Amino acid sequence: MRYSQLFGKTSKTAPTDADSVNAKLLTQGGFIQKEISGVYNYLPLGLRVLNKIQNIVREEMNKIEGQEILMPAMTSEEGWVTTGRNAMDVLFHLKGQGDTNLVLNPTHEEVVTPLVQKYVFSYRDLPMAVYQIQNKFRNEARAKSGLLRGREFNMKDLYSFHTDEADLDRYYEIVKKAYFEIYKRIGLGDITVLTFASGGAFSPFSHEFQTLNENGEDTIHLCKKCKVAINKEIIDTQKTCPECGNDKLEAVKATEVGNIFKLRTKFSEAFKFYYSDQNGQDKIVEMGCFGFGPSRTMGTIVEACHDDKGIIWPKSVAPYQVHLVGLDLFEENIKTQAEKIYQDLLDKNIEVLFDDRSDVTAGAKFADADLIGNPIRLVISKRSLENGGVEFKNRNKEKSEILPLDSFLNKIIAK
Amino acid sequence: MRYSQLFGKTSKTAPTDADSVNAKLLTQGGFIQKEISGVYNYLPLGLRVLNKIQNIVREEMNKIEGQEILMPAMTSEEGWVTTGRNAMDVLFHLKGQGDTNLVLNPTHEEVVTPLVQKYVFSYRDLPMAVYQIQNKFRNEARAKSGLLRGREFNMKDLYSFHTDEADLDRYYEIVKKAYFEIYKRIGLGDITVLTFASGGAFSPFSHEFQTLNENGEDTIHLCKKCKVAINKEIIDTQKTCPECGNDKLEAVKATEVGNIFKLRTKFSEAFKFYYSDQNGQDKIVEMGCFGFGPSRTMGTIVEACHDDKGIIWPKSVAPYQVHLVGLDLFEENIKTQAEKIYQDLLDKNIEVLFDDRSDVTAGAKFADADLIGNPIRLVISKRSLENGGVEFKNRNKEKSEILPLDSFLNKIIAK
Repeated sequence: MRYSQLFGKTSKTAPTDADSVNAKLLTQGGFIQKEISGVYNYLPLGLRVLNKIQNIVREEMNKIEGQEILMPAMTSEEGWVTTGRNAMDVLFHLKGQGDTNLVLNPTHEEVVTPLVQKYVFSYRDLPMAVYQIQNKFRNEARAKSGLLRGREFNMKDLYSFHTDEADLDRYYEIVKKAYFEIYKRIGLGDITVLTFASGGAFSPFSHEFQTLNENGEDTIHLCKKCKVAINKEIIDTQKTCPECGNDKLEAVKATEVGNIFKLRTKFSEAFKFYYSDQNGQDKIVEMGCFGFGPSRTMGTIVEACHDDKGIIWPKSVAPYQVHLVGLDLFEENIKTQAEKIYQDLLDKNIEVLFDDRSDVTAGAKFADADLIGNPIRLVISKRSLENGGVEFKNRNKEKSEILPLDSFLNKIIAK
Repeated sequence: MRYSQLFGKTSKTAPTDADSVNAKLLTQGGFIQKEISGVYNYLPLGLRVLNKIQNIVREEMNKIEGQEILMPAMTSEEGWVTTGRNAMDVLFHLKGQGDTNLVLNPTHEEVVTPLVQKYVFSYRDLPMAVYQIQNKFRNEARAKSGLLRGREFNMKDLYSFHTDEADLDRYYEIVKKAYFEIYKRIGLGDITVLTFASGGAFSPFSHEFQTLNENGEDTIHLCKKCKVAINKEIIDTQKTCPECGNDKLEAVKATEVGNIFKLRTKFSEAFKFYYSDQNGQDKIVEMGCFGFGPSRTMGTIVEACHDDKGIIWPKSVAPYQVHLVGLDLFEENIKTQAEKIYQDLLDKNIEVLFDDRSDVTAGAKFADADLIGNPIRLVISKRSLENGGVEFKNRNKEKSEILPLDSFLNKIIAK
């Protein structure tokens, strides 16, 4: 993509209402643009990042036999009356024609349970798991922190259905592993820890995945030995590490990026969702629910991966792999070389953002490259050619090096 | 995918409230499940079809320099007040915290115009075009006809921005061609015609793309020579073919699957969206808008492509390319052969739905294959093996043939 043609340019000044690093850098970098509080437009750069996160999540859900479906955002209020959650304060209510009561779903237990119930009757239909990647709505009193707490936001929610608690427990551990794999793949693996949280009425614990970062809105209590934490809601009742018994837990700041929960029979009982077992007896279905917020995670990556110049995207979710800066393009020879490098990268299917602007200074181009934060910066200029080629620099390193024009591609492919 | 494990099975009986062929067949086939009137769940089979349509549309929009973005469904009512469209009867209104007036967007001119205005200032920033593939909401008094008229439905909407009318006209023709390419690729090319419709206050015409089918809710007046039509709203003022002057137009039934429109300056004037021209003078921006409904198109394909046994998907949008029916699987040898065929197809990246159920009759399996409507049916059974291999049949042909086990793959790849 040529930066001169890209919709959504960088801005030198931070939005005045940006209350977080991710809101500031993502807006200044041209990734997102706020519509109203807690509701954002995704510009081309931002949508690329969001899609990459979603695709990693999708692949990992497919690997554990999750079947992708798509449920509506807007449904009748009926299911929420059935479960008694219709008074939940974040639920958006609206009226359909004929004065019907509709809601915008902030989560989909009230939709997925009766939906799955239409197709699952027997123990032979279980276990099964469905998920969706879809936008949710929460009428937050204080939407804030950019993509971290939105009123319209993207979620992956997986729901699993089981014959008994043992099978739910088995699958719960499988999903837990898949989540670790997701955080590893999106570049948050080293700083994301399993955190014990309240399990509600039915289960001893639920689990959050918390990404350590100094701007985090949560405080968690970390066992550094096990890389496991306790969240603040249950720290008074669970004062030691549940894995090793360590009572020297350290209070650290973190951002929640996932939440997994054994719903057990809470929703299947509300909807009278039974299956027929091997003996033809009706048994209640056990359920699990597994949330992951791609948009929230996008914000969290920025909170955790940036410096004072801008974002430092992990390779797997970066909008482009290479940020190609062309300087001195008014010289025909340099322009030709720059265009050739751009074409060579495209031909090798290497994602490249080519800053081909002719009316911008070198300093401004470097600042934009740092702000946008693609992993590799290539500079082609009069000086780089005099030095023997194209200048190569990793976004997260200080040192640059000159690569010869006839072999720079190998180095980039190897990275 | 093994059919035994697929979420969303076929149903022998049509839903009692199905008022259209697409609602009936898509529900019976396990593609969709109605949530409330005009709002549907997409089950795995249905989501596969929807995604394929979306991806074809995305590819064609990218080819004509459309840049993909994602705007929110929920915004402030403010933009709609600015354009005076806030009283539109299909607009869903809702209240945010602090008693703010929010809407769910049924179309996005009120969002995209001020958004693009934030980044486009000069003639050098034009022309440009952005699009999204996103869910829209319309508070229809009579949502009906399955996926054809929904209250929550999927849309691709492209918006283009130009320095003058001539450039808008130029791009309009480019998008028109892209639309024909889309209909061709999704299998509706031969029966989809450009239809002249009212242009509103600013333009002589807008254009619809109408797919001919006997269940269509629209009546259009077709020039058979030019394959161009006039819609019923303007037939009284435009009585002849605009291309050849033919006055022998034929009234035929059709379903609208796309709409393209020269907005001209209607929205740029409302939002005071000016650009600076070569002489530094402020000029008003010209706009075009180009709609395509992937979910509506999915319904239309079923209306146009079915027989009394079920759906006949065009290859490019079929959920799977091959429906593999395994019979007599209780015999170890046949089961082994069936599993090998399934694995061979997977290894060649051929999308295959394998009906591996052991508790279902041959007749029911054949009926399901016809109902679901994948392009190729393969049957492996005691009889097919006695006859020398696996039975091959196209969904849209009567005749079947036996393919030897050592060469059936070549035939399928060649199809």
